[in-house]
Amino acid sequence: MFTLWNKFPQIYKQLKHVEKMIDDRLHTNNPNVEELLKSLAEDQGKQLRPGLFLLFSQLGEQKIHSDEKMIKIAASVEILHKATLIHDDIIDDSPLRRGKITIQSKYGKDVAVYAGDLLFTVFFSLLTEAMNGSKYMSYNSKAMYNLLVGELSQMHLRYSQTQSIADYLENIKGKTAALFKLACMEGIHFTQPDPGTETLAGEIGLNIGIAFQIYDDILDYTGNTKSLKKPVLEDVAEGVYSSPLLFAFTKAPAEFKPLLDKKQDISPAEIQEVAKLVAKYDGVKDAQALAKRYTDLALAEIDSLSNQKVARQIKTVAIKLLNRAS
Amino acid sequence: MFTLWNKFPQIYKQLKHVEKMIDDRLHTNNPNVEELLKSLAEDQGKQLRPGLFLLFSQLGEQKIHSDEKMIKIAASVEILHKATLIHDDIIDDSPLRRGKITIQSKYGKDVAVYAGDLLFTVFFSLLTEAMNGSKYMSYNSKAMYNLLVGELSQMHLRYSQTQSIADYLENIKGKTAALFKLACMEGIHFTQPDPGTETLAGEIGLNIGIAFQIYDDILDYTGNTKSLKKPVLEDVAEGVYSSPLLFAFTKAPAEFKPLLDKKQDISPAEIQEVAKLVAKYDGVKDAQALAKRYTDLALAEIDSLSNQKVARQIKTVAIKLLNRAS
Repeated sequence: MFTLWNKFPQIYKQLKHVEKMIDDRLHTNNPNVEELLKSLAEDQGKQLRPGLFLLFSQLGEQKIHSDEKMIKIAASVEILHKATLIHDDIIDDSPLRRGKITIQSKYGKDVAVYAGDLLFTVFFSLLTEAMNGSKYMSYNSKAMYNLLVGELSQMHLRYSQTQSIADYLENIKGKTAALFKLACMEGIHFTQPDPGTETLAGEIGLNIGIAFQIYDDILDYTGNTKSLKKPVLEDVAEGVYSSPLLFAFTKAPAEFKPLLDKKQDISPAEIQEVAKLVAKYDGVKDAQALAKRYTDLALAEIDSLSNQKVARQIKTVAIKLLNRAS
Repeated sequence: MFTLWNKFPQIYKQLKHVEKMIDDRLHTNNPNVEELLKSLAEDQGKQLRPGLFLLFSQLGEQKIHSDEKMIKIAASVEILHKATLIHDDIIDDSPLRRGKITIQSKYGKDVAVYAGDLLFTVFFSLLTEAMNGSKYMSYNSKAMYNLLVGELSQMHLRYSQTQSIADYLENIKGKTAALFKLACMEGIHFTQPDPGTETLAGEIGLNIGIAFQIYDDILDYTGNTKSLKKPVLEDVAEGVYSSPLLFAFTKAPAEFKPLLDKKQDISPAEIQEVAKLVAKYDGVKDAQALAKRYTDLALAEIDSLSNQKVARQIKTVAIKLLNRAS
């Protein structure tokens, strides 16, 4: 289920608890809503973010929270991610997510709006139970805010031919990396580390998150529906221009322009044209180099962690995670 | 602007601060999102809920919070309401809300999903700043949860001819009254009242909220687009069967059935037929009697508050609020 964590028996065991915690939370007395909640509980993901949270929590020596509270916080990170995925699928009109039918396909957009909202409240209540009074309450609200500003900003730049790699990086920092950063910082925070290590953990999370998203976007150009379980090149059709396209575009804007000017009316054949141009101008190669830069940054930062035993485990995970996506 | 509060200079002045607080919160460094946030800030409503919060906060003698914190909490109640309205408008496909163009009409459904989400984070951050560590953190998450379960349950019962008045009441308790209850309880809570008074405040809020929603639903049958600034009878077309229809239906199901069986394909002429049947079987009259029952309950509870000076003001507001809607 969460293959990334196979080699980490303790984390794996804790993630089973996280899964159960999420499952337990998705119940209500109202029979009209119960079926939907059951659907939400069934669709549990790879748990990258709670796994990182739990792994980073092993960096410190002290425990100021009970195991149950740590499981609740780990669950909160996953639930926040899950909530945003449901709303993302509304925006992307995605019929599938990791090969499974999306909530909006199954129940309609309207239900999906409220289902995502409901998960936000579960996120909020888990935090309230686990850390009411902690400064991490505001860190969580800040991460959620950054995440949404990233999504909104990306949406605003749809079909824009003037957006830069800097714009792209700014948006993925918000929409993806903010939550990775939170998971890593929050993980170590509750072991009372020195402030320098906590900041370092945040940087590692941020860089892993940026690299992860760049690799994920590259898959839209290199993957196929079998391995990825989602339609390829759908980002182009939706006007989400990620780094392979942006890099290639700067080298030959005149060749891309007539195709991209079609915006949402671009045909499947024309999308294939765009893909060919991206390949011709080394867009994927440039994007891979960009992702590698952030991967290398993260790995160097991981090396500088003082708890070398846990650092090695984090490194293993980071390499596996970022190779998977490349 | 907030006409309900004209006669209460202190509340009115505080509500101006609430409005400014909301305005101040709706900014970001990201230029791609700034215009949307400005739109959200411009569309400030009647502030019923923060007004009630502030009025109930005058019931107690002690103040355990600074004025600024109380303004933040008042703003949080309005922001939560605002967030759910934006998502409601997506579901209802409403072009207008109180005569103003909705966020989804102006920017599209996709932006509206994230815009509502963004307001949830503002709600969360205001609470974190004003009351981190308070038990009211979890009361807030519970109210938000109830609100969404109410909305989802109502959606689940769309076009259902077997729903009862009890189902209807359960749903409006969640989707509307939970927030009124929270506003009133939370208002008095931070003055350290005895627990009995706090519970009583919650009951008053709940009953005001239920009566308010019943009257609001009645307007769909009695109002017109001029006074209401929204299309009349739209609930019927959308399958939201509120109390006037439910009361009338039980008296003559066979007459309603052929019309309601059309579900979303019901024509404007057939909707007028439904309205005639509702009138024929006294649906509005029965619904008014139901609303009056909750209004009377609220008024009796207000009378039993020990601070008679403030209780009189609350009574004035409740009568004005519930007459307005009737």
